[in-house]
Amino acid sequence: MSAPLCKLALNTATLGFKQPLAAVVDAAASRGIAGIAPWRREFQDTPVSQARRLFADAGLAVTCLCRGSYLTFGSELQRDAILEDNRRAIDEAAAIGAPTLCMVVGGLPDGMTDLARARGQVAEQLAALLPHARAHDVRLAVEPLHPMYAADRSCVSTLAQALDICDRVGPELGVMIDAYHLWWDPDFAAGLARAGADRLLGWQICDWQVPTRDLLQDRGMIGDGVIDLRRMHRQVLDAGWQGMVEVEIFSALDWDQRPMAETLDVLCARFARLALTED
Amino acid sequence: MSAPLCKLALNTATLGFKQPLAAVVDAAASRGIAGIAPWRREFQDTPVSQARRLFADAGLAVTCLCRGSYLTFGSELQRDAILEDNRRAIDEAAAIGAPTLCMVVGGLPDGMTDLARARGQVAEQLAALLPHARAHDVRLAVEPLHPMYAADRSCVSTLAQALDICDRVGPELGVMIDAYHLWWDPDFAAGLARAGADRLLGWQICDWQVPTRDLLQDRGMIGDGVIDLRRMHRQVLDAGWQGMVEVEIFSALDWDQRPMAETLDVLCARFARLALTED
Repeated sequence: MSAPLCKLALNTATLGFKQPLAAVVDAAASRGIAGIAPWRREFQDTPVSQARRLFADAGLAVTCLCRGSYLTFGSELQRDAILEDNRRAIDEAAAIGAPTLCMVVGGLPDGMTDLARARGQVAEQLAALLPHARAHDVRLAVEPLHPMYAADRSCVSTLAQALDICDRVGPELGVMIDAYHLWWDPDFAAGLARAGADRLLGWQICDWQVPTRDLLQDRGMIGDGVIDLRRMHRQVLDAGWQGMVEVEIFSALDWDQRPMAETLDVLCARFARLALTED
Repeated sequence: MSAPLCKLALNTATLGFKQPLAAVVDAAASRGIAGIAPWRREFQDTPVSQARRLFADAGLAVTCLCRGSYLTFGSELQRDAILEDNRRAIDEAAAIGAPTLCMVVGGLPDGMTDLARARGQVAEQLAALLPHARAHDVRLAVEPLHPMYAADRSCVSTLAQALDICDRVGPELGVMIDAYHLWWDPDFAAGLARAGADRLLGWQICDWQVPTRDLLQDRGMIGDGVIDLRRMHRQVLDAGWQGMVEVEIFSALDWDQRPMAETLDVLCARFARLALTED
């Protein structure tokens, strides 16, 4: 059973943070899942040193740490606090052995309507964080989020925008690719080619449901929506990606309400059926 | 009072279709609103000849007719029915004196996951409709819809995509610009410049609310959200737009539940405060 899953990584948000990290690790590893992407909030109950041991003992590779805090700000005071928190996130990524810190860059701070200004802040903040990331051997992965989050979560909406920021800030920066955010973009393949293998730092999937009942918490199980995941996966491979495929499903409306075992069993079966590992 | 509103057009969806068209026309004209964009569904109660008279008697300019039916299809039978219905829509636009038929092009038909194929269908269908539109002196306005509608309403998500289709199909085609759909797009200004004045066929506004509680029915009253409408309006003017500004708010969650007079009074006050007419 483990062969079809040797490229599958579990983003722990998929299970809705209802179980202790140790239980999640056990459940994932026992099914042959090969990697894990934890969230920082889990370190409140499971200190990073313990988390690192859990992953190592279970043989789970850490694909990334989710995630840096929003980089956009309305005041200088906020700016410094944001940098401080993100340096802590870099420390935590290094401490658990995550090669990558996923960066969700933030939307418009209260009262701001100037998206260009917010985008400029993102580039400046990333530049300020880069030395710390470099010193800890952690790559910062800029994640373009679906345009429906432009106001409140990410003023960076397309792969092209994320790469513009990478070009401007430095070659150590890279991008996190998520099918949910980018499936609609006609320039997706062009963006992948432009990124090149060295700047592709993560590949996340879930599905887009019709109807989508909530902007944040109604992502679909892979195979339940309209995204052509096999096609996108081939495009990502063609761009040089050799890493794992991380499944990240935010679903307070559905999957979070099911037992962990059910979610994982369905996930593993769907992943095997999609046969993304074979490509 | 009418001077600040001389460029304001009311899209009738803003009032939730709760009142007969005659009442809507009266209420709009009495407030100094200068233009109107009706929906085809209103012709079930108010035949087109009567609608045309209502608009003319009230001195309301018709900015466009909303809207053509989805162009994408899963079978040849559907294809023909779609063309037939859109030819009727063109006839109705001509009959009420609308210079433009707004085209929402459709998403993925049931079972289809290939966005590129759907986009190809859109271009083919528009090409098939163009002779009829030309013969009736009605311009077809391709409306890019927010990427959150890519699956179920419009596989055309950006202004650049809409213009690619216009380039391919013919110079009589143009685009409908809507702030709600395009406010996040870093290439908005470039797209406007590329379109040029002759292909800009409509300019619609509302606002993006934070939070947005529903993908379709939670659009904001102008001024209640985060969109910098004054900036976008200047960009549209810079691209050569000289027409009206059409306010289109889908809001089953809020404005549809208020009395028509309240919605119109707030709308007119907000429009005057935004001072879009002065630019």
